[in-house]
Amino acid sequence: MQKIGILGGGQLGRMLLQAAANYPVETFVLENDATCPSAHLCHHFVLGDIRDFDTVYAFGRQLDAITIEIENVNVDALEKLEQEGVKVYPRPSVLRTIKNKILQKEYYQQHEIPSPEFKVTRSLAELEAAADFLPAAHKVAEGGYDGRGVQLLRSREDINKGFDAPAVLEKMVTIHKEIAQMVAINDKGETALYPPVEMVFDQQLNQLDYQLCPAEIDEKTNWKVEAIALSVVRNFKSPGIFAVELFVTKGGDVYVNETAPRVHNSGHHTIEAHYSSQFDMLWRIMLGYPLGNTEEILPSIMVNIIGAEGYSGEVVYEGLEEILKIDNCFVHIYGKRQTKPGRKMGHATIIHRQKQDLTHKANIIKRTLKVRSR
Amino acid sequence: MQKIGILGGGQLGRMLLQAAANYPVETFVLENDATCPSAHLCHHFVLGDIRDFDTVYAFGRQLDAITIEIENVNVDALEKLEQEGVKVYPRPSVLRTIKNKILQKEYYQQHEIPSPEFKVTRSLAELEAAADFLPAAHKVAEGGYDGRGVQLLRSREDINKGFDAPAVLEKMVTIHKEIAQMVAINDKGETALYPPVEMVFDQQLNQLDYQLCPAEIDEKTNWKVEAIALSVVRNFKSPGIFAVELFVTKGGDVYVNETAPRVHNSGHHTIEAHYSSQFDMLWRIMLGYPLGNTEEILPSIMVNIIGAEGYSGEVVYEGLEEILKIDNCFVHIYGKRQTKPGRKMGHATIIHRQKQDLTHKANIIKRTLKVRSR
Repeated sequence: MQKIGILGGGQLGRMLLQAAANYPVETFVLENDATCPSAHLCHHFVLGDIRDFDTVYAFGRQLDAITIEIENVNVDALEKLEQEGVKVYPRPSVLRTIKNKILQKEYYQQHEIPSPEFKVTRSLAELEAAADFLPAAHKVAEGGYDGRGVQLLRSREDINKGFDAPAVLEKMVTIHKEIAQMVAINDKGETALYPPVEMVFDQQLNQLDYQLCPAEIDEKTNWKVEAIALSVVRNFKSPGIFAVELFVTKGGDVYVNETAPRVHNSGHHTIEAHYSSQFDMLWRIMLGYPLGNTEEILPSIMVNIIGAEGYSGEVVYEGLEEILKIDNCFVHIYGKRQTKPGRKMGHATIIHRQKQDLTHKANIIKRTLKVRSR
Repeated sequence: MQKIGILGGGQLGRMLLQAAANYPVETFVLENDATCPSAHLCHHFVLGDIRDFDTVYAFGRQLDAITIEIENVNVDALEKLEQEGVKVYPRPSVLRTIKNKILQKEYYQQHEIPSPEFKVTRSLAELEAAADFLPAAHKVAEGGYDGRGVQLLRSREDINKGFDAPAVLEKMVTIHKEIAQMVAINDKGETALYPPVEMVFDQQLNQLDYQLCPAEIDEKTNWKVEAIALSVVRNFKSPGIFAVELFVTKGGDVYVNETAPRVHNSGHHTIEAHYSSQFDMLWRIMLGYPLGNTEEILPSIMVNIIGAEGYSGEVVYEGLEEILKIDNCFVHIYGKRQTKPGRKMGHATIIHRQKQDLTHKANIIKRTLKVRSR
C-alpha cells in the first residue's frame, strides 16, 4: 500500500481524505493543530509546522508521495525529498514559482500566457514611482491568501494602502466575468479539464459569493479559457491538479489572474456535480490510475458557508435543517470548532437541471444559514 | 456537536464515516481490531467487543446516538442505553427480532407480511420429524452471516447437513428474481424508498455476483415490493435505514426473504448512482435533518470485490488500473490488510445510461480484477 502525505490539515485535506478511503493508500497529515479538520481522518497524524524544513523533511522521508493543500509550505524540504525519490504533487519548482507573485507573473510572461500587465515594486518608494500605472491591484509577493495581501489602488491617494515589501502592481482589467478552470494532469502528461466555473464575488468583502458551473460564457471564450489554462499547466511540467483563475473582459479577452497548484475552493462542486471529483482525481493521479471523468452530472452552484460578522467562539449552525430541505442541496461542514467573521466553515452545493433555479436557491441558502457562536 | 457511535468497524462503518465528515458530528467506533477499515476515520476509536454488555454500555453512555453496522451486537446493553435516553438506530427491539431468524419469521407472520412458509426446528430430531416439508432452506436462528448458517435441504438425504440447534426450516420458493428494497425512515415516521435493486447470485458460492439498479421488474411487481417493504419497516416502529430482501416468483408473487436494519451491501451503489447515498441518509436520520433524495442519477451495477480462491495473506490487487479505465467505474477498496477466499475486500460500481452495457462492464471487472496475496 502506498504511503501518501498531505501538508496541511484544513478542509481541502479533509475532503481529500474522504476520497482517499476509496483506494488502497495509507494516509499521513502534517499540521500544527491537533483539532484541525483532517486530524481524525488519516492513518497517521503528525503535529508540526508545514513551513519548517526539518519537520517537513522528516515527515516526507517515510512517504512514497506527498501533496499540499496550501502553498505556504517549506519548498526547500520538498525539493530535497523530490531529489531523494519522493514524488511531490505538484513539483516543488511549481510551488516556488506560484508562491511568489512576482515569479508567477514572470512565468506567465515567459510562456506568453495572457495576464494583466504588471510592474514589480519592492518598496513603497518604488510603488510611488510607479503611480502612473494606477488604477492597479497591489499584490504582496509572498504570504497573501484569500483576499489578504491584495489592495486595490485606484488613484495616488490609495498609495499608502500599498505594501512596503516586494509586490506585483497589476494593471486593473475591467472584468466581465471571473472564471476558474480546473485542470488535471498525470505523470504521463495526460490532461483532463473540468467545465469552467464562474465565480461571483461579494465586492465589499472581496470574498466569493457563489460559484456557478458550467460558467455562462460563449463557446469561443470557453475555448480560449481552456487553451490558456492548458498552456499554464503544461508549461509547469508537473503532474497534479491545478485551478487556473481567469478574467474575461466584455470584449472577450481572457487573462490569467492566478493559479493554485492543488485542489481548490473553486472545485468543491465537483464532489456532487461531477462524476470524478477534484479530490478523487488527485488520488487517481498520485496512485497512477487513469484520469477520472470530468463531465458534469448536472449544473451546480456552490456557496461558501462563512463565519458571520460579530460572532467569534464555539460555532453554532443555524438553519442547517432548513437548507437541507432543498432538493439536491448538499452541505460540507468542515468541523472547525471556532468560528470568526469571514472564516470558511463549510460549503453547500446544489445541483439542478434548471440553471436559473440555482442562483435563486443559492440566495435562499445565504439568507437562511447563519454561522454564529454560542 | 452531537456524539454518535458505530458498533462495528468494517466496510459499512468506513463508508458511513466518509459520509459523516460532511456534517457536524463527533464520531466513535467500537471494534476489537485496531486495524479494521474504520479505525482511522473516526474521532474516537475504542478497542472492544461489540458483543460484550459492559463494553457496549460503557461505549454508549458517552453518546447522543448509536448505530450498528452488523447485527451481532449486545442488544441488552443497547436496550439499557435506550432506556437511559441514548437514541439507538435501529431500536434494540428491532435488532432482537431480526437477529433471531425464528423471531424474524414470526414477525412477518404476525404482521401478515408475505414470506415463505416455515417450520421451527430446535434440533436434528425435530428436523427429521419435519422431513415432509422438504425441499427447504434450513437457517440457523442465531449467528448466520453472508451465506454461513444456511443449508439447502433438497431431500431426506440432505437432512444430516441441517443444524442441531434452533433454526427455521423454510419452504423452497422457485425464485425468478431476488430484489433488495432499501427504506429510510426518520424519527417522525417519514419514509423514503430507493429504487429496488436486483441481486444476481453465483449459485455455487451462494454469493452476490452483481447487483443491478433499478431492478428489471414490471411496475406492478415494483409496487408490491415497495408496499411489502414499507409494511416490514413501518411495523418495526423504529427510525433507521433498512434493506428488505425479497423473492419474486415467475407468477409475480413477492415474498420477504430477510431484513437488515442497517446500511447494507445492497445499497453500495447509492454512493455514486443516487443523489443521497444510504450512508448520507442514515446521518440525515440520526442528526434530525430532512431525508435525502433517493432518485437515481443513472442506472448502476455493483460488483463485490472478493478474495480469490487459493490466496490468503497480505492483499495485492491486480487489474485495478485496468478497470478504472472504464468510464464511470468507481472502486471502493476497504483497506483490509489480509485477504482470504471469499472475503469482501471492496466493491466497484459502474453507472451508465444504457442498462445493457452495465452487465457487460460488470463482467469485464470480474474477469480483470483479482484479489490475491503476496
